[in-house]
Amino acid sequence: MLTADNIADYINQAIADIHYPAAPAGLYQPVKYTLEGGGKRLRPMLLLAACDAVSGDCSAALNQALAIEIFHNFTLLHDDVMDNADLRRGRPTVHCRWDNNTAILSGDAMLTMATQYLCKDAGDKTGQILDIFNTTAMEIYEGQQYDMDFERMKTVSVDEYLMMIRLKTSVLLGCACRIGAVMGNAPDYLCDLLYDYGVKLGLAFQLRDDYLDAYGDPLTFGKEIGGDIVNNKKTWLLINALNEDTTGRLEKAIEQSLSRGNKIAEVKAVFEDLDLPRRCVELINKYVADAVEIIRESPLGDDAKDFFINLALSTIERTN
Amino acid sequence: MLTADNIADYINQAIADIHYPAAPAGLYQPVKYTLEGGGKRLRPMLLLAACDAVSGDCSAALNQALAIEIFHNFTLLHDDVMDNADLRRGRPTVHCRWDNNTAILSGDAMLTMATQYLCKDAGDKTGQILDIFNTTAMEIYEGQQYDMDFERMKTVSVDEYLMMIRLKTSVLLGCACRIGAVMGNAPDYLCDLLYDYGVKLGLAFQLRDDYLDAYGDPLTFGKEIGGDIVNNKKTWLLINALNEDTTGRLEKAIEQSLSRGNKIAEVKAVFEDLDLPRRCVELINKYVADAVEIIRESPLGDDAKDFFINLALSTIERTN
Repeated sequence: MLTADNIADYINQAIADIHYPAAPAGLYQPVKYTLEGGGKRLRPMLLLAACDAVSGDCSAALNQALAIEIFHNFTLLHDDVMDNADLRRGRPTVHCRWDNNTAILSGDAMLTMATQYLCKDAGDKTGQILDIFNTTAMEIYEGQQYDMDFERMKTVSVDEYLMMIRLKTSVLLGCACRIGAVMGNAPDYLCDLLYDYGVKLGLAFQLRDDYLDAYGDPLTFGKEIGGDIVNNKKTWLLINALNEDTTGRLEKAIEQSLSRGNKIAEVKAVFEDLDLPRRCVELINKYVADAVEIIRESPLGDDAKDFFINLALSTIERTN
Repeated sequence: MLTADNIADYINQAIADIHYPAAPAGLYQPVKYTLEGGGKRLRPMLLLAACDAVSGDCSAALNQALAIEIFHNFTLLHDDVMDNADLRRGRPTVHCRWDNNTAILSGDAMLTMATQYLCKDAGDKTGQILDIFNTTAMEIYEGQQYDMDFERMKTVSVDEYLMMIRLKTSVLLGCACRIGAVMGNAPDYLCDLLYDYGVKLGLAFQLRDDYLDAYGDPLTFGKEIGGDIVNNKKTWLLINALNEDTTGRLEKAIEQSLSRGNKIAEVKAVFEDLDLPRRCVELINKYVADAVEIIRESPLGDDAKDFFINLALSTIERTN
């Protein structure tokens, strides 16, 4: 039976087996470094699980699972350049370990590699999965652009924020589910259903990210708590606080040159006055409940239902 | 009959007709700006001419021609970031007019757009042309990586240089010809033949670029003469001079802080002592002769032969 652990092992092995040309090393080493940096392998896992759920054989979709993971890592690589981020999964980012030009060019190569894996042995499904993949890729660039735009805007509505994270994060989870279903010869309504599940899961997942930055357990979170707060990153928490705080306390906390610890404490106090931690958890639970409902009502087999439902429920509990 | 001018008009019209989503403007405006910046449209022209040469109808390959032009402009956009270039075709580059992040993300979007256009209405040829396109894209990234590597190396052999420009520049011309031939249902040997023509043309084209930087006519060249010399850019001329100059004069010209004019004059004097301008022209002529020979020996019709031969011969004479 498929479990999250054995799918992740399967994917990690396939990633370790990727063959890279020896030269030019400056192009291929950063790709290998990026792909072997670990991570949850959530997207290829969804793709394989969706394929398995509709056909019982997911080995035929392994190339497409790798494609999605390579694409996801390409977006992280370029995002890290754009955000000037130093660390990714506890290791120096490519542009820090090498340089910006290396990160740009290796990322470009990863996007093309992703397309190559997507089409590998896809037979008469090539055109269809390419359409899904490219449409999703364009949505993700749009999401990244909105994210950068929002950082420069004084106010952003909650609806705009949810639209942005849907584009930047959620549609790729939906896309992974849909491509897995297509590779497994599922009928259209089942492809749509699994796509919708992935999107709901993605929304829950991103909101949990936002929540953990402020309220995660420092022992399990893996990075320092409050990074988003320190950087005034427009998360769901901060956007709501900016729109709702009428006391001026939030504005002061952002504009004064407080120490890191004081700033985090001040901003979190505003979040709590506005009941935002509870409301954030409530929204996450709503998206997870939607995702679970989609699967429960579906005609998928019991093992598949258990897998997707447990994955969604684990989002509520996840600590890193 | 097809002429370079009427194909360019056809392509420019198709580029002007591309529809972009209105939002987010920060993503799509730089794409439009880049694609509408002009240029010779050499690659889509080759693609359409190759299709026309083998089938007589090139309108069915217009999407693929746009794909190649969008891809080419994506590489220029990211190269300009990597080279920190201010101007492209007489206008500010995207990273100067907007910023680096905009240039990176819009470039990514162009690569995905190129893949979308490539597959549009390609029917059962989708898999085949995607393979050609993606293989070429990887070669181009390799070429760009070698180019950056060479800038940091003390010596580079002429063979290494020719390998690099083949990857960075020539294979895309070959790829354009091959995809055009495939779209026109040409037999494999004719696809190979037109690919070989494109590669030879590309080599001649790049060497002419190197030559014009030092020996172009300032009135027609469009940018200042000697830019490569001032930047110690490892062109065919400089690489040969570095390998052959035994007088120490070149090293001095590079290491001393000469004025722009003096540096250019000194380096060109070394080029001339080594007979490099004549030898460069000779090599260009050799590649052009090879390209012409490939076409002359082919079974293509007379109009197609005239078109490809004239295009190759114009490379010898081109001044910008």
